[in-house]
Amino acid sequence: MADRLEQSKALSSETRIAILDWLRRPEHFLHQETGDPHEIGVCVTLITEKLDMAQPTVSRHLELLRRAEFLSVRKIGRWAFFKRNEVGISDYKEWLNEHL
Amino acid sequence: MADRLEQSKALSSETRIAILDWLRRPEHFLHQETGDPHEIGVCVTLITEKLDMAQPTVSRHLELLRRAEFLSVRKIGRWAFFKRNEVGISDYKEWLNEHL
Repeated sequence: MADRLEQSKALSSETRIAILDWLRRPEHFLHQETGDPHEIGVCVTLITEKLDMAQPTVSRHLELLRRAEFLSVRKIGRWAFFKRNEVGISDYKEWLNEHL
Repeated sequence: MADRLEQSKALSSETRIAILDWLRRPEHFLHQETGDPHEIGVCVTLITEKLDMAQPTVSRHLELLRRAEFLSVRKIGRWAFFKRNEVGISDYKEWLNEHL
């Protein structure tokens, strides 16, 4: 089971909420060259551009979301692509609806 | 509107999740002398006993939950009584179900 406290904490940042929201509509990132963002996810570089933040900061946010099982990551060559983990997200919602 | 980030953060503590859970069944605290815990809420003293923590720590947790609109507080004399704010809790759930 995912760590519920870690998941709640992952949602306590405006940046992370925005990332989850954008990745719900990966067409925001259709200029990505490597592949269809709906399928492989969105490259860290494009998420970083969109946020206009330093890449290490963005990577930290993405890692928190991945550990919370809200995102999944796929590595292709030297690039990391992130997409929403809908199973993990639904699982958290169900837990919250039942336990809160 | 409640601060959604503050609300998410309020849920990132095992202690605060436990408090919300106990207050769902205030009969845990029926030995309270001042009044029916279902009606007026549960006195900080009893919540502190149950948690077996220092009162300032417990008060800080309760204050975070109150600011997140998950608890409401009622003061009677020198005592503070907390109960679940079901409207605030449902409101957060609805937001989360819609936006996550």
